[in-house]
Amino acid sequence: MSSTGMHESADDAEYRAAVADILGVLAYGELMAFERLAYDARMAPTLDDKAALGRLATAEFEHFAALATRLSDLGIPASAAIEPFVEPLEEFHARTAPSDWAESLIKAYVGDGLMRDFYREVTRVLDAETRVVVEKALADTEHVTFLAERLRRIMAEDPRCAGRLALWARRIVGEALLQARLVATRREALVRLLAGGRGVDLSAAFDRIIQAHAGRMAAIGLAA
Amino acid sequence: MSSTGMHESADDAEYRAAVADILGVLAYGELMAFERLAYDARMAPTLDDKAALGRLATAEFEHFAALATRLSDLGIPASAAIEPFVEPLEEFHARTAPSDWAESLIKAYVGDGLMRDFYREVTRVLDAETRVVVEKALADTEHVTFLAERLRRIMAEDPRCAGRLALWARRIVGEALLQARLVATRREALVRLLAGGRGVDLSAAFDRIIQAHAGRMAAIGLAA
Repeated sequence: MSSTGMHESADDAEYRAAVADILGVLAYGELMAFERLAYDARMAPTLDDKAALGRLATAEFEHFAALATRLSDLGIPASAAIEPFVEPLEEFHARTAPSDWAESLIKAYVGDGLMRDFYREVTRVLDAETRVVVEKALADTEHVTFLAERLRRIMAEDPRCAGRLALWARRIVGEALLQARLVATRREALVRLLAGGRGVDLSAAFDRIIQAHAGRMAAIGLAA
Repeated sequence: MSSTGMHESADDAEYRAAVADILGVLAYGELMAFERLAYDARMAPTLDDKAALGRLATAEFEHFAALATRLSDLGIPASAAIEPFVEPLEEFHARTAPSDWAESLIKAYVGDGLMRDFYREVTRVLDAETRVVVEKALADTEHVTFLAERLRRIMAEDPRCAGRLALWARRIVGEALLQARLVATRREALVRLLAGGRGVDLSAAFDRIIQAHAGRMAAIGLAA
């Protein structure tokens, strides 16, 4: 391990198991986000909105493809890497199916934000090449602006929906953390990599994620 | 009009109305294909299959984006151009929702094929710049090979499903032609452009489309 705390190579078995988990959960997270956003786009009130959500969905697919390529470069079959995360991620999406356009925007905004926070937390434990792939996904921020603006406009037009959307956002965070906790109890190498040595202080990481979420809510005028 | 029968510019009003229709129906066709394919990907039996259908869906989205850009370059709002085709295309997809993975592959294979045939028929009446956009979408053929191979494999593994899938393909063609006929009765400028002057012999075009469909069915071992 280098002085920065990052792995410089993907050689040892424990690291490989953990990085397979990180890439696996991110890859399946992106693929599911792609599927769900494309499907949620059917609720868009205008063609521009539909196209914007479609554009976001295709960006998530490109992230998935890049992560799957990195897995394959590491000699790890993508299907094996995602397998432990299929059930929790399907469960998350099944429990957070939006019932209208505003709910689907909130889900995209909150879900994408949490995924980015997770990306940010894990970059520090990754080898340099894997980190490049992960940081490329993080650099893609155009649609965050779109989602925030669109949500602010919806709440300006109909201030009464703010309460409902704040509750909905809380539900999404709650379900995401619930599934994350379930995953953590089952993936020892992942947790050891994240928490061990020069890795992440998990409790501090949790605080940062919640704070970042509160910041995103404040940016659209909602309490977290 | 040039000696090739193509419009060299998008100046006259009748041509503009017809080209708005062509780009509108293709754009919304691609956007709906994107949404539906991404959603159908949930039925994929393996991650590779899911990723392949997702890749196909993102390609359809890129075609949509290119067509929408061309509309906007012509000063035509995309939302206005697609409006006449929203109902027939939604109706088509509502009537042809696949119930399993094999049905969704057949729908992608048949539907994409019909869309390409339509692209091919209309290119000859388009101005040069619009034609470039349309031909770029046509050049994208990688996934046709994937779909045909995957369908051949499914039928090799379970020959009994061939009869059901042949019926399903017929239903998709039938619904597509039904909606196309409805559209034709309502869009006079479009039909005049396609059928008029050096344009398309509509009855010959219909025969070519049916023959191309039969050829695609034969390529996967099914009767049309």
